[in-house]
Amino acid sequence: MKAYDIILKKRNGGALTDEEIRFFVNGVVDGSIPDYQATAFLMAVYFRGMTDEETVCLTDAMMRSGDVVDLSRFGKLTVDKHSTGGVGDKTSLIVAPIVGSLGLKLAKMSGRGLGHTGGTVDKLESIPGYRTDLPSDAFLKQVEKTNVAVIGQTGNMVPADKILYSLRDVTATVDSIPLITSSIMSKKLAAGAHTIVLDVKTGSGAFMKTPADARVLAEKMVLIGKACGRKMAALITDMDTPLGTHIGNALEVQEAVAVLKGRKNDLFEVSLALASNIASLALELPIEEAKERCLRAVESGAAFEKMKDWIGSQGGDVRFLDDTSLFPPAKYEIELRAENDGYISHMDAEKLGLLCVELGAGRRRKEDAIDFSAGLILNAKTGDKVQKGDLLATAYTSIEGVEDVIRAAYGRAVTFSDTAPEQKPLIYDVIS
Amino acid sequence: MKAYDIILKKRNGGALTDEEIRFFVNGVVDGSIPDYQATAFLMAVYFRGMTDEETVCLTDAMMRSGDVVDLSRFGKLTVDKHSTGGVGDKTSLIVAPIVGSLGLKLAKMSGRGLGHTGGTVDKLESIPGYRTDLPSDAFLKQVEKTNVAVIGQTGNMVPADKILYSLRDVTATVDSIPLITSSIMSKKLAAGAHTIVLDVKTGSGAFMKTPADARVLAEKMVLIGKACGRKMAALITDMDTPLGTHIGNALEVQEAVAVLKGRKNDLFEVSLALASNIASLALELPIEEAKERCLRAVESGAAFEKMKDWIGSQGGDVRFLDDTSLFPPAKYEIELRAENDGYISHMDAEKLGLLCVELGAGRRRKEDAIDFSAGLILNAKTGDKVQKGDLLATAYTSIEGVEDVIRAAYGRAVTFSDTAPEQKPLIYDVIS
Repeated sequence: MKAYDIILKKRNGGALTDEEIRFFVNGVVDGSIPDYQATAFLMAVYFRGMTDEETVCLTDAMMRSGDVVDLSRFGKLTVDKHSTGGVGDKTSLIVAPIVGSLGLKLAKMSGRGLGHTGGTVDKLESIPGYRTDLPSDAFLKQVEKTNVAVIGQTGNMVPADKILYSLRDVTATVDSIPLITSSIMSKKLAAGAHTIVLDVKTGSGAFMKTPADARVLAEKMVLIGKACGRKMAALITDMDTPLGTHIGNALEVQEAVAVLKGRKNDLFEVSLALASNIASLALELPIEEAKERCLRAVESGAAFEKMKDWIGSQGGDVRFLDDTSLFPPAKYEIELRAENDGYISHMDAEKLGLLCVELGAGRRRKEDAIDFSAGLILNAKTGDKVQKGDLLATAYTSIEGVEDVIRAAYGRAVTFSDTAPEQKPLIYDVIS
Repeated sequence: MKAYDIILKKRNGGALTDEEIRFFVNGVVDGSIPDYQATAFLMAVYFRGMTDEETVCLTDAMMRSGDVVDLSRFGKLTVDKHSTGGVGDKTSLIVAPIVGSLGLKLAKMSGRGLGHTGGTVDKLESIPGYRTDLPSDAFLKQVEKTNVAVIGQTGNMVPADKILYSLRDVTATVDSIPLITSSIMSKKLAAGAHTIVLDVKTGSGAFMKTPADARVLAEKMVLIGKACGRKMAALITDMDTPLGTHIGNALEVQEAVAVLKGRKNDLFEVSLALASNIASLALELPIEEAKERCLRAVESGAAFEKMKDWIGSQGGDVRFLDDTSLFPPAKYEIELRAENDGYISHMDAEKLGLLCVELGAGRRRKEDAIDFSAGLILNAKTGDKVQKGDLLATAYTSIEGVEDVIRAAYGRAVTFSDTAPEQKPLIYDVIS
């Protein structure tokens, strides 16, 4: 078998066999297939696509290219969630303790933020003492003991994706449904959970700009996960506007705590929907009953207690959860106020995410350090009626002299109108 | 400017600017653009194509990526020919002395054979003493003195093509019209001739399998050459059947000599057409008059004298031209005879070319050595009526024990029928 023939077959629109796909993936990982053949192949896949059978095989081959987490000791109670990434998306911090409090096992590996999107690992590290680098056995013990453990990616998980993603990133072959699907799903499958619920974001702050695009991706990922023997669901949710009111690492932890303590907003709604779908699949309950249980877990305080249990067990200082005013403030606050009367007709979530990078809350490059205290609190969101002088948002930063840049960036990200904008759904659909 | 953006633009079907194309070509040559970005770009070009303006720019940028031969001292008398490659194609050995005898200047750089196709440099090296590695000044002095010089590619000519071609060769991006056009034409333009006539082959032994495909390539190359200020024509000629009767290096020299001494066959016809078109463009003569002059050059013996003049000046032993029986024979002869009465309905030129590789006449890999004496002489060609027992071909080899393999390969390459096959044109068209 030769890489050339596989590239040629795909270039000509053929469907690759299981054997051909595994040969290619293994060759990319062991270095016998050079990068320049891999990228030509990726571009051919961009143009020709892949059948569902090919995508299942690609995902499986990538998943098996490295270490796979064995959660079999926990039976079928293991669950996982994955978001395609957004701004202000701290649902993991809320969903994890809710489902943990219901007896489900969430052994989660999360990523760091890059560009306009945040990452759960960064958010958790804003809690003093929290360890995101547990060794494998401690990670599983933590799941055993508290039902919830969230760490950074460790070991040699899905090396095929590391190689292929870094090549896609520099060759304009990222936005291909089979390649996105296999990249996300190979990692989720390798993480070992029996039930996986995906949060596929759509809108200005999301990779998939339209609900239709998001649906295509969601359906494909659900199909692949099921083909690999997992229980699957995907929610298509709005990321045209940031989720919740807080953007930035310690700020997002504070908002998550507020929701677990009873705050009701869009963030609560999306988190509840995710948790309910996880519980419904894993516990085999009707969705309404699952939702009822999740709601009760929040209202009874069980979910918040589970959060403290989890965070504390992983070394985090839980006093910061009981009293979020302990989080050290940023040096400067910049108040952003309405210049006219009107409605907020649109907030560009990606631009607001990049504004937070300017504040020090995110990374431009992987090696950048971040300031946990930096970020943005939104006092008004899309659809809100505002009057001249109203406080729209407060920006937090420890960088001197960025005020003008931030005001200008906020001005470019937020649009006003005289009439109320059309209201968009928060949750477009649930695919299962 | 970033390579990523150029790949993305082409992937999305955009037309690249002059500046973008030059940035890409220069980056590939200086190494600032890695191979894996180059191949993704090449695959995007395969799918999206290029406009004529883009192809002109790509060709020009590639041509300027290295040394360019300066033939300006010869004014507008400089001519060149290029064949897209075939089996038994020794027209250069005939065309060169014809046009040289008319006072035109042919300073030609030729290639070596690879796979099923032969190369002029190998054929010339079968003449004892012939030097294909003249330094630049000796090369030009030879042109000055004898009008004809043919050497191997030297110096740092079109390094962009060397890199891009080697990448295309392993990533299934060879058969793209803008990439083929720019690869061939950048080298032809860098070789410096004012008049260029192309022989675009079509059929089983050619890269372009149909006359329609060959025409697309021919028209594009003529257009590019004209856009770069050269006089251009392209002949579309048959390569469904090998050209002439002799395949193999020393054997082909012998057939070329026979044609220059008066033999009339398909090889003579194609050579005459090429020479006439060159003379017509370079001397600004009506094609019929140019043809008349070329014919006279052969019939008067002037062309053969020019061949000896040229070969002798480049160190070749001209006694081998006066008496081709001096060429040392191969160790073994294998006679291939008709098993039944009938017509030869088809000869697969590519398969016959590969059969000659088995005989030792060609290379599988670039580093392979070749046996100048090996090859095939065809006694019967497509359309010929044969009787059981007739000699169809003789194979020459110095490799022991290949007889059965050769008989089987010949059997697979040649098809017979009870009725005469439809006759195909030898020259499909002339594009100018």
